Amino acid sequence: MTASATQLKEARAARASYRAGEVAPTSGVAHGLVQANLISVPADWAFEVLLFAQRNPKPCPVLEVLDPGAYESALAPGSDLRTDLPAYRIWREGQLTEEVTDASAAWEEHPDLVSFLIGCSFTFEAGLTDAGIPIRHQELGRNVPMYRTSRACAPAGRLRGDMVVSMRPIPADRVADAVRISGRYPAVHGAPVHVGDPASLGIADLAAPEFGDPPEVREGEVPVFWACGVTPQAAIMDSRPPFALTHAPGHMFITDVRDSEYLA
Amino acid sequence: MTASATQLKEARAARASYRAGEVAPTSGVAHGLVQANLISVPADWAFEVLLFAQRNPKPCPVLEVLDPGAYESALAPGSDLRTDLPAYRIWREGQLTEEVTDASAAWEEHPDLVSFLIGCSFTFEAGLTDAGIPIRHQELGRNVPMYRTSRACAPAGRLRGDMVVSMRPIPADRVADAVRISGRYPAVHGAPVHVGDPASLGIADLAAPEFGDPPEVREGEVPVFWACGVTPQAAIMDSRPPFALTHAPGHMFITDVRDSEYLA
Repeated sequence: MTASATQLKEARAARASYRAGEVAPTSGVAHGLVQANLISVPADWAFEVLLFAQRNPKPCPVLEVLDPGAYESALAPGSDLRTDLPAYRIWREGQLTEEVTDASAAWEEHPDLVSFLIGCSFTFEAGLTDAGIPIRHQELGRNVPMYRTSRACAPAGRLRGDMVVSMRPIPADRVADAVRISGRYPAVHGAPVHVGDPASLGIADLAAPEFGDPPEVREGEVPVFWACGVTPQAAIMDSRPPFALTHAPGHMFITDVRDSEYLA
Repeated sequence: MTASATQLKEARAARASYRAGEVAPTSGVAHGLVQANLISVPADWAFEVLLFAQRNPKPCPVLEVLDPGAYESALAPGSDLRTDLPAYRIWREGQLTEEVTDASAAWEEHPDLVSFLIGCSFTFEAGLTDAGIPIRHQELGRNVPMYRTSRACAPAGRLRGDMVVSMRPIPADRVADAVRISGRYPAVHGAPVHVGDPASLGIADLAAPEFGDPPEVREGEVPVFWACGVTPQAAIMDSRPPFALTHAPGHMFITDVRDSEYLA
């Protein structure tokens, strides 16, 4: 099913406003269309990033790999990955060195960048809210909390790191529904990797996420953890490639493709 | 669910006998365990092969990518991809130059080979026979017929080619079941890409497959076409990398992993 004219108009307007310099989290923008994580690396690292994703499909579901040097996504004709995200992060030797709203200079520095668009849990959140399951961070107008875990990803050449998860507190009587519904989206993280018991995932303090905003877990709710597309950023921090460009957490690339395209 | 002791014993015995020089098609061997297509290319071509697979997941479902120079598959501990398949093909500049039963010399020539194990339709055939759907080429003791189509795969760098399909004649009243059952195995080609009407797939003569043996389509049966793991071999013929090593059609790599691992 292709996106409606209204949805496409909203997606294009959002990309155009980010291109013009607007900075805002993308949660809730162009409801029903897929948003994607971005990671761009020099061509010399592209095989290892793709292999890392192939070996770790739950945290790194690849939606598209662009040709070296290309920046128009097939998921959004007319788009420009250099400018159409609200905010970017630039990494050198594994260190976050800059956060920018326009990545054109990075592309001039590395004209051979290979860009990966990776699925994002915003895609199945729409399915959860449609089923009446509350998404706390949306209710609070916050970013989803994300944690580095003690669970190692399968390494790929020089690339290694631990899995990053996102967390949503779910009422105990809706956990099974949340598993079932998100499981219908295997191409965008799918079912949770862990339900309850943060300690056994290596999370010491739920109130102190490494990425995003602190959560609010209420009485009768269970913390439910999904593999997260920020995992490649954690691998970059651990593996220290000379250069990488990513989206800033919560500031995703908005495509023209409907969430339902990724239903199993 | 892990493989039974009997299955593992049969898989190990088969690999050992191929290692010792036996040559035979693998259809029906170690029933219930996954068999895989093999393609090994010099490291310089690995990114493009992986990208080609990522862009064409139906014909090229990747089960495993080994590290450069590695030949023990994680899907079969103790295996050796240089010797454990019954027959191999060696390709130079897109030409089939040798068919060998031991690929050790090829590995000495190219110690940096990157090996890809790609899903095989034998995996869902077990599901079809379990449902009482006849598999004609098995009944006849032949290899499945495979055809080059006129449907172009999405190219990846220097790698391009048309999709190859396998064909099974299915009684008209079981076609829907065959679609449903094979669709439960998205990691190994999944549902058919085409049902009936070979001409619109670019197949001029069903009796003359490019790979495998001629079919026998009986009254009341419809030719049903699945994306085929021989597609990368066709891409090699078209794209002419300096070197590639593959399995010989029908002579697959037998793993220790149950077919049911790949149920959606």
